[in-house]
Amino acid sequence: MSGCGAEKGLISIDEALALVQTRPKALTVETLPLGDCLNRYLAKAVCSKVDLPSFSQSAVDGYALSSTLENLQNCTFEVIGEIKAGSETQHQLIDGQAIRIFTGGKTPDGTTHVARQEIVKVESDLTIRLIEHIKPQADIRFVGEEVQSGQQLADVGQRINIGALAALSMAGIPHIDVFRAPKVVVVITGDEVAETPEDLQTGKVFDANGPLLKAWLKDYGLEVDILHIADEAEQVSQCFEQLKQQYDLIITTGGVSVGDYDFVRPCAFATGFEQVFWKVKQKPGKPLFFAEFIQQDHACYLLGLPGNPAAVYVCMQVYGKALLDALQNQRQPLQWFSGMLTHDLKSDARERFLRMNAYFEQGQLKLQSLSKQQSHMLSNLMQANSLVRIPANIQLQAGQVLSGLFIHHSSY
Amino acid sequence: MSGCGAEKGLISIDEALALVQTRPKALTVETLPLGDCLNRYLAKAVCSKVDLPSFSQSAVDGYALSSTLENLQNCTFEVIGEIKAGSETQHQLIDGQAIRIFTGGKTPDGTTHVARQEIVKVESDLTIRLIEHIKPQADIRFVGEEVQSGQQLADVGQRINIGALAALSMAGIPHIDVFRAPKVVVVITGDEVAETPEDLQTGKVFDANGPLLKAWLKDYGLEVDILHIADEAEQVSQCFEQLKQQYDLIITTGGVSVGDYDFVRPCAFATGFEQVFWKVKQKPGKPLFFAEFIQQDHACYLLGLPGNPAAVYVCMQVYGKALLDALQNQRQPLQWFSGMLTHDLKSDARERFLRMNAYFEQGQLKLQSLSKQQSHMLSNLMQANSLVRIPANIQLQAGQVLSGLFIHHSSY
Repeated sequence: MSGCGAEKGLISIDEALALVQTRPKALTVETLPLGDCLNRYLAKAVCSKVDLPSFSQSAVDGYALSSTLENLQNCTFEVIGEIKAGSETQHQLIDGQAIRIFTGGKTPDGTTHVARQEIVKVESDLTIRLIEHIKPQADIRFVGEEVQSGQQLADVGQRINIGALAALSMAGIPHIDVFRAPKVVVVITGDEVAETPEDLQTGKVFDANGPLLKAWLKDYGLEVDILHIADEAEQVSQCFEQLKQQYDLIITTGGVSVGDYDFVRPCAFATGFEQVFWKVKQKPGKPLFFAEFIQQDHACYLLGLPGNPAAVYVCMQVYGKALLDALQNQRQPLQWFSGMLTHDLKSDARERFLRMNAYFEQGQLKLQSLSKQQSHMLSNLMQANSLVRIPANIQLQAGQVLSGLFIHHSSY
Repeated sequence: MSGCGAEKGLISIDEALALVQTRPKALTVETLPLGDCLNRYLAKAVCSKVDLPSFSQSAVDGYALSSTLENLQNCTFEVIGEIKAGSETQHQLIDGQAIRIFTGGKTPDGTTHVARQEIVKVESDLTIRLIEHIKPQADIRFVGEEVQSGQQLADVGQRINIGALAALSMAGIPHIDVFRAPKVVVVITGDEVAETPEDLQTGKVFDANGPLLKAWLKDYGLEVDILHIADEAEQVSQCFEQLKQQYDLIITTGGVSVGDYDFVRPCAFATGFEQVFWKVKQKPGKPLFFAEFIQQDHACYLLGLPGNPAAVYVCMQVYGKALLDALQNQRQPLQWFSGMLTHDLKSDARERFLRMNAYFEQGQLKLQSLSKQQSHMLSNLMQANSLVRIPANIQLQAGQVLSGLFIHHSSY
């Protein structure tokens, strides 16, 4: 393809991204058990109801001691009992007494030190001797030293990733308020889907977009239905009419260019959608279409992806992710990495996303482009771990710093 | 905790990782529909049975032409019909003829050029005129230009990520051979799990490890059961005896230290497991335990994680991931990034994994440590996006290059 860069009326990648990130209304908020919230976004800050640790405890397996002496080396202590982790004692230590304790065990009143067992010599069932001196309050974890009751643990917008989920579990948070997960449906348009290899001889192609979108959305955390629909205006309109009431987002592939069978835009308009933008100064993915259907209590968005699978892939990583996040009120800029090109690169009239292999060398991210970048080609995704933004109309040289996105579940 | 670095018999992180990666036997291979293979590893190379593209096709919406002229500017062509994507024509173009065609449409025999519609003037229903000259074979995608029939698409060991799945779909691959997903069970040991905030006053703590491991394994692609078991030797042994026959991997938390209630190792030995290693020169996670139970036709591995949740988190990101991958015959070194420390860092007797915030500046990855790194603390996981390896016994200065791992589904 050639010469498409000069076309008028196209918006830039940054303009398109800003519209995708700011335009959607946030979905409603729901209260869910914490364990069901992996990869959701927090709608209300969470404060701890407890101190962490909640009680003074031993950091090691050893002995809790009570002593007012300055130097404990060679001191002996009377052992008055044992405390397992998860239990407590009624004992109160007085000067010269010790109690057997394990990691996480609640230290009894009167504890001044904890001695790890490696520096303790057991002289009898009832007597221990310290081999080394230890400092006061050694190996004691104090109440609230990590988090104090009432302290904010997580802010609005926090993604509940594995670490966040674990940290909130540790504070005993049973439920949290998160934005509802978007209800998404995928509509694959086009008459060209092959069922068998024989179909390829009659101008059909195997469907990459359906499996691609199903997998992409599953990885994002959403199970979706994939519909196939013929290039036929009435069918497409009927489909949108029905789906717009049931879903928060319709993702289509194909049918958004200027061909005579590109029904997605006219059918969207016929069913009450209004265009937010159409066509982005980018490669691949120029015909990208974004529209909204707004009612008082419901909005449905339509992300019209091009039909070429590389465009589908790139547009989902960039705009699809941003849009799904925005529906959950997460509107932060994408986290672009910056890396250094390892070779020269020819100029192109449109800004491009190239599939690259990114690797680290001495703290520096190096970017190596892959062959077969055309929008109908996908095989280089076996090697690619990143999408890199290439500015338009510039001959780039090795050493140029570029921004990009890592591909999920790739090597990094 | 202090002074633990000098202890003898500990192995290094690299030694432990090598054992975790090389010791497990690969699981059996199964043939599955491609769509069910997201995040699995390929057990047999896949070759394409078709050419991609499978037929010569238009790269644009426009007209397929037949002409032997050198300069096509201002030439007129007779339009003899139309070809939709997904269909074909019986027409054969002869010199001076054109046919309407759309992106992906199969070019008829005799096609010498494709002209995109932007450079075509429609003069009548039957006549078009070219506004610009185009080169021979312009905007034609040729048979096999991306992939030729018989060519290898994906090699053994390829992770079937979203891009790989899409690329194989496009080649019409219906089934692939992948390593079976590991059957994993999680056993949380310890009497100290609190059910309500009131329990915290009696020395108990909320369970972070169960939710953490459930979420971590779900993110890896595995749904697992979480069992809780008391610190009681007979129960632990009974549990292992049963589980070792049903599962490929038992992951335990707690009970692997040297305390009197640390039953995991003795009970593993009592039920036929043999130790591969115990104790790693690292912080957190020193007591990490790895054992194997080998029968003729079945092996079960036991990864004994410490009880502290930060140790659980770190050990899963490093060793858990490597072990699950190795069970699927994926034994490549972990993909460590390299980044530059932004501040000085005190020395420690053990090699450490610190939770850090990593960010890019001009192609350089910068690493900023977070506070509250102790092994019983998790709250900094709200901010952390990486685990960074800190060598032992060295006072580090800003600018030092360190290696680390990005945390899944964090910002990068």
